[in-house]
Amino acid sequence: MISDATIKRFKTIVGDRYAVTDVNETAPYLREPRGLYHGSTPLVLRPANAGEISRILALATETGTPIVPQSGNTGHVGGQVPLDEQPAIILSLSRLNAVRSIDLSANALTVDAGCILQDIQKAASDADRLFPLSLGSEGSCQIGGNLSTNAGGTGVLAYGNARNLCLGLEVVLPTGEIWDGLRTLKKDNTGYDLRDLFIGAEGTLGVITGAVLKLLPKPKGKQVAIAGLRSPDNALALLGIAQQQCAGELTGFELMPRIGVEFTSAYIPGVRDPLESQHPWYALIDLSSMRSEEEAAATMETLLATAFEKDLVQDAVIAQSEAQRDAFWHIRETMSEAQKSEGASIKHDVSVPVSAIPEFFRKADKAVHQAMPDARIYAFGHMGDGNIHYNIQQAKNADGSAHLARRHEINDMVYDIALGMGGSISAEHGIGQMKRDKLAAIRQPIEIDLMRRIKTSFDPANIMNPGKIVCP
Amino acid sequence: MISDATIKRFKTIVGDRYAVTDVNETAPYLREPRGLYHGSTPLVLRPANAGEISRILALATETGTPIVPQSGNTGHVGGQVPLDEQPAIILSLSRLNAVRSIDLSANALTVDAGCILQDIQKAASDADRLFPLSLGSEGSCQIGGNLSTNAGGTGVLAYGNARNLCLGLEVVLPTGEIWDGLRTLKKDNTGYDLRDLFIGAEGTLGVITGAVLKLLPKPKGKQVAIAGLRSPDNALALLGIAQQQCAGELTGFELMPRIGVEFTSAYIPGVRDPLESQHPWYALIDLSSMRSEEEAAATMETLLATAFEKDLVQDAVIAQSEAQRDAFWHIRETMSEAQKSEGASIKHDVSVPVSAIPEFFRKADKAVHQAMPDARIYAFGHMGDGNIHYNIQQAKNADGSAHLARRHEINDMVYDIALGMGGSISAEHGIGQMKRDKLAAIRQPIEIDLMRRIKTSFDPANIMNPGKIVCP
Repeated sequence: MISDATIKRFKTIVGDRYAVTDVNETAPYLREPRGLYHGSTPLVLRPANAGEISRILALATETGTPIVPQSGNTGHVGGQVPLDEQPAIILSLSRLNAVRSIDLSANALTVDAGCILQDIQKAASDADRLFPLSLGSEGSCQIGGNLSTNAGGTGVLAYGNARNLCLGLEVVLPTGEIWDGLRTLKKDNTGYDLRDLFIGAEGTLGVITGAVLKLLPKPKGKQVAIAGLRSPDNALALLGIAQQQCAGELTGFELMPRIGVEFTSAYIPGVRDPLESQHPWYALIDLSSMRSEEEAAATMETLLATAFEKDLVQDAVIAQSEAQRDAFWHIRETMSEAQKSEGASIKHDVSVPVSAIPEFFRKADKAVHQAMPDARIYAFGHMGDGNIHYNIQQAKNADGSAHLARRHEINDMVYDIALGMGGSISAEHGIGQMKRDKLAAIRQPIEIDLMRRIKTSFDPANIMNPGKIVCP
Repeated sequence: MISDATIKRFKTIVGDRYAVTDVNETAPYLREPRGLYHGSTPLVLRPANAGEISRILALATETGTPIVPQSGNTGHVGGQVPLDEQPAIILSLSRLNAVRSIDLSANALTVDAGCILQDIQKAASDADRLFPLSLGSEGSCQIGGNLSTNAGGTGVLAYGNARNLCLGLEVVLPTGEIWDGLRTLKKDNTGYDLRDLFIGAEGTLGVITGAVLKLLPKPKGKQVAIAGLRSPDNALALLGIAQQQCAGELTGFELMPRIGVEFTSAYIPGVRDPLESQHPWYALIDLSSMRSEEEAAATMETLLATAFEKDLVQDAVIAQSEAQRDAFWHIRETMSEAQKSEGASIKHDVSVPVSAIPEFFRKADKAVHQAMPDARIYAFGHMGDGNIHYNIQQAKNADGSAHLARRHEINDMVYDIALGMGGSISAEHGIGQMKRDKLAAIRQPIEIDLMRRIKTSFDPANIMNPGKIVCP
């Protein structure tokens, strides 16, 4: 329990206006997208800057008060809310939302951690640059959370994940010290790589308060197509040809199932079935040319011609305008959102070697059909990265709670299949609360031990997002 | 001092044949390329595999024996040899030199840490892939050292440094435990990023014994040109145009001074002045097309036409064969080697924001001319990364020792200029012995403190390359 006297001291740091205690007002901070985790909090702090966060964390270390940092609250694994068994103060980054500076010659954008990803994309675009991190929740997720979870998304194939797009960080350490690592240099070999330790640490080693992001040249030509296919095997073959023919121009290759197109068409305003005929699978192909629209168009035409010739694709449509490109991407980006209208879903964020995706589907589908004959397999994702969101939708009109009640059993089953193929049970969503009991089973004892040593030496009072990733 | 009894125990692990104690045989391990650092060693161990290294490090932790890991012994900053004040056992990785496996569908190559970089490049090439890490010493440097120093080289502009080209590691920890992190997955967010902590740690946190390296598609077209220019300002403008016009096809942009072309022509067999006329500066431009030779040629022609039109380039020649491309690169790659024939050199491996390179030259040249009027400035390097090897060659026929005796004063002067421009004093060579006293001045106390916490928790007996980077 956190005492009233302690709470009072925390409130003083940010002022009453930004210290939220009313249960109606704290409730949204405890409500995560899937409704599986919430925990409890006596206080949500909304500090204005790194200086206030420094004082908060110093006080937390002094008093042994657990702190859960939270940015956009869009995470899928419960990392951003307190544990049920341990109330914690939630530290919201939402007021740290300024774009601090842009350096065009260094192609670097320095931002506060609470900036919304879409605002960052826009700031880059306004400067004729591209910030390629892109994911379904980009309208509300914040860059601090993206970095803390090493977010993936749809641009990983060409541009890497959040880690690859960050040059420097500003971090408030659990002891209250501020590390100014806001560097823009491409090359600087002067000691251990602290930056990459905080990226992906899910807020357990400190609070990221600012970041220098890498900007890229904006492509001069874009092409987006949706192709209907018979199978994941054909999608894999198509991906291989695309990588060969389009080389650096292939900037997205997403796999979507028929049921996903049906759900988005049914439940997401404005979404229409992209092709006249129906297909078991769809590939969304995104190409970018650094030279011209014509070049991108020629590459896409050659690719689709080859695909038809080899009978890998049954039908395809190329977006004819920016609006149509956005509409095609919207289908993919709302695929997760659309599931909610059909009830509960048991979700997996697995990766396997790219070449093993068809085999993964064969094994996992068979196991799910045996375990839950009426459930609907709803699998989509980043084919080019070997990362599939393998979701199991409840049977139509069935009981959602009963479906979800079996999630641990189904999770274990699917995880075992992915791990058995050399894969990962958390490709991009992180560990959070959902997979914290799995970590010890999937990482070697020496890895857990090294992580624990780092945790203990960075956060001696164990105040930062306690119970996530490793416990000291 | 390391006792005879302890030495005997270490020898037993590898066997007498691979335990070198004769001073004539240990001498080469203590001789680094510049002859500035050597230290002393009672024993060089040449283990066969990670298992033997595990037993060596466990024994070192037990007995408090300092261990200096060494791969190709090509480092420029003395990281690979013992400190003068502390004899240490040298652990040579040279017998761990097998290419373990190649996975073409995952584009991943798994190698022993003692593999020579050129052999790795060849293994990739034989499989129709590219491993783009490339540096002057690639014929003798080993991948373990490349990773431990996060090596840069000429491919960073397009492909990133060693860190970006590594998917997974196998590391023997100071306590003798073996971490098998030989992963090939592109996406795996399951806990702290241990890999990037060992990369660039200069052998102070453990011994890298194996690595999974990222392979890329081999380009279908290559073009290499050397252009003569009037100034670094013109080189910067040319780089800007090249990045705009060639986008992803620009795979190298190196700056070379007239004196460098003179030295290489004079001292390196087979090197000839590439242009008929003489120019104060030269740019080596390397283009790669994923599509065809014709596309690369067209891009190069357009680039050079623009450059002539804008009067940025006075003369240029495009290599007409693979042999000529290699010959052009050979000029750049032997630029450091050629200096040795003209005596002593005070070296700097600095980086500044790319756009600040001309200003850096103006400031540094002025300071050097004032401090050492007869010395010859010999500056070359990775223009596209903002990384310049700013070397000061002794005056002709002067006393090399007297020149080198002033190296600390000149180093400080040049470092101050680079740091004052937001730069780094170690872009790619690392800290080693050369810059260990500088680290405290250039990194914040909190950074040094965090590095020390990591060091202490990973290497409690402080046996791994002690005295390098941070002391516990």
